[in-house]
Amino acid sequence: MAHGSSGAREVTLTAVARRAGVSPATVSRVVNGRPGVARETRARVGELLRRHGFHPPGRVDPGRAALVQVVFHELDAWAMEILRGVVEVAAGTGLGTVVSALPEEASAVARERWLAGLRRRAPDGVILAMWALDPAFYEEVRGLGVPVVVVDLVGLPAVRGPAVGATNWAAGRTATEHLLRLGHRRIGFIAGPPGLLCSRARLGGYRTALESVGVPVDDGLTVVGDHTPTSGFDGCRRLMGLPEPPTAVFAANDPMAMGAREALRRCGLRVPDDVSVVGVDDLPATRLSVPPLTTVRQPLTGMGRVALRTLLRLCRGEHLEATRLELATELVVRSSTDRHRP
Amino acid sequence: MAHGSSGAREVTLTAVARRAGVSPATVSRVVNGRPGVARETRARVGELLRRHGFHPPGRVDPGRAALVQVVFHELDAWAMEILRGVVEVAAGTGLGTVVSALPEEASAVARERWLAGLRRRAPDGVILAMWALDPAFYEEVRGLGVPVVVVDLVGLPAVRGPAVGATNWAAGRTATEHLLRLGHRRIGFIAGPPGLLCSRARLGGYRTALESVGVPVDDGLTVVGDHTPTSGFDGCRRLMGLPEPPTAVFAANDPMAMGAREALRRCGLRVPDDVSVVGVDDLPATRLSVPPLTTVRQPLTGMGRVALRTLLRLCRGEHLEATRLELATELVVRSSTDRHRP
Repeated sequence: MAHGSSGAREVTLTAVARRAGVSPATVSRVVNGRPGVARETRARVGELLRRHGFHPPGRVDPGRAALVQVVFHELDAWAMEILRGVVEVAAGTGLGTVVSALPEEASAVARERWLAGLRRRAPDGVILAMWALDPAFYEEVRGLGVPVVVVDLVGLPAVRGPAVGATNWAAGRTATEHLLRLGHRRIGFIAGPPGLLCSRARLGGYRTALESVGVPVDDGLTVVGDHTPTSGFDGCRRLMGLPEPPTAVFAANDPMAMGAREALRRCGLRVPDDVSVVGVDDLPATRLSVPPLTTVRQPLTGMGRVALRTLLRLCRGEHLEATRLELATELVVRSSTDRHRP
Repeated sequence: MAHGSSGAREVTLTAVARRAGVSPATVSRVVNGRPGVARETRARVGELLRRHGFHPPGRVDPGRAALVQVVFHELDAWAMEILRGVVEVAAGTGLGTVVSALPEEASAVARERWLAGLRRRAPDGVILAMWALDPAFYEEVRGLGVPVVVVDLVGLPAVRGPAVGATNWAAGRTATEHLLRLGHRRIGFIAGPPGLLCSRARLGGYRTALESVGVPVDDGLTVVGDHTPTSGFDGCRRLMGLPEPPTAVFAANDPMAMGAREALRRCGLRVPDDVSVVGVDDLPATRLSVPPLTTVRQPLTGMGRVALRTLLRLCRGEHLEATRLELATELVVRSSTDRHRP
């Protein structure tokens, strides 16, 4: 895409659709490399997109350096793991990776200003790694007419384009099965925010694991956190205050597991001797903790790599066999879980 | 700087110097906003730079979005803290922040390829946050003719331009003084890599603090690590194996302090009851640790903010009163240090 033709960039996908005599959904399919478009139509739409300064499938203007935009809510450890994967793949291609943080609570004005900056930068593609992706914002970004890949929100109905996530349901199941195999039957669950897809998937996996071995799901053993250590601390204290407290705690992410472990310590309980704790993530920070946390590894760096590779394929005008990919999670047994001792 | 005039970009600072009838050092002073250039000369050089497509002091071409390039060796927790500050300031300006990771061990070929990509991107300024900045690489980047700000290497002779760091010597002194005030006299030190400026500064601060209260410096109490938890673990074990082991350990960064703490645990020693531990950094990850680590906070996010603000001032052609800034470090007392119990 040539720089400086910002007027042309104003043309919307709808206008291209009108000129090509197809529906906007078809134009969107071409931009995002989705199947279901006849070869001839794809070529015609691609040509119109190219003519109007939208991303040219198959080639990047050699006169300028290609840029990809990555957007997070916040630059935290989770974001860093994803970014590492993106930057690693970008390094091999000469592509520049532009990073932004647009907080979940950003005002409409701040968001509009950011979108204006994005339009001026005219990146060749966008990766959205925001845990609470707003559908209207997603559509605004897609309106740029360049490929957009979403990270971690596979399955959200609003995300109609390419997405790369982790097997969150399997993560919930794997963690719970690990505790069941160790003989635990009363397993507390500290869930993530119910509004997040990954939270619902991990909760679903936890329930399925219990049900599949005939352990009835006791809703009193599930407390809701917000992915912070403090909420893990509070949630674990509530669980331990139950008349019949759990013998193992599964926290839906590592920071909450760290908080839970501190709560247990303050209750005078030893990990894993008295209570087992398992998390999800395997962020480098938690590997430093003592005792090292048993967790389910999310392939965050791999997700970043695959997100950029997918974006590059879309930029080259390639078709994707699957627009939604979930990378496997993996149980990592360390020292915070042990056999149930009745 | 206009995009697409890549031919003009080939003009070196030397050529501009020749045309302006001044030394290359003077041109460099203008580019980097350093004093010592007459107002008239500054204007003449600025005009020539502008004409040749170099960064135009005072204005950014409104026809394109401004980009700033930030370069790390590795995207770790340290990098993330700095990046957060850069991105925060960038958000208010519509500036795009391009992030790269160029490993310390990158081959000459990989480095050359990266530099070629950088030249194509033609950023308006560059922030180098690399703990082992290679002087030749630094000069290559300065050769782009745009402002360059270095993070964390204030005082390195090779860094002749603007730099933003932390008061590393004061950090070493503060940590040691804290332990001395608690009554410790045998204080072990786990130093960072001796090749790094911050390591030498922290070691200097440790020694000064001891000397200023009349405690002789015992070189046997200093071991060398490489900033990783494992090296902190190994270093601490060596210290504890001494005939007269220390009662407190100062590790030159938090990851080594975390490793040291694990080593103490494995030796059956309690923190802080038996041995006190203090680190440097205050990365968010270490705040989760149990017990929370006493540390000297490095204002990494603040360094990122100041680095970009400095760069923006240089882009606007402003003079800097000081080209080398050190932001204050601050002792944060948590639960890993306590009084010496003889």
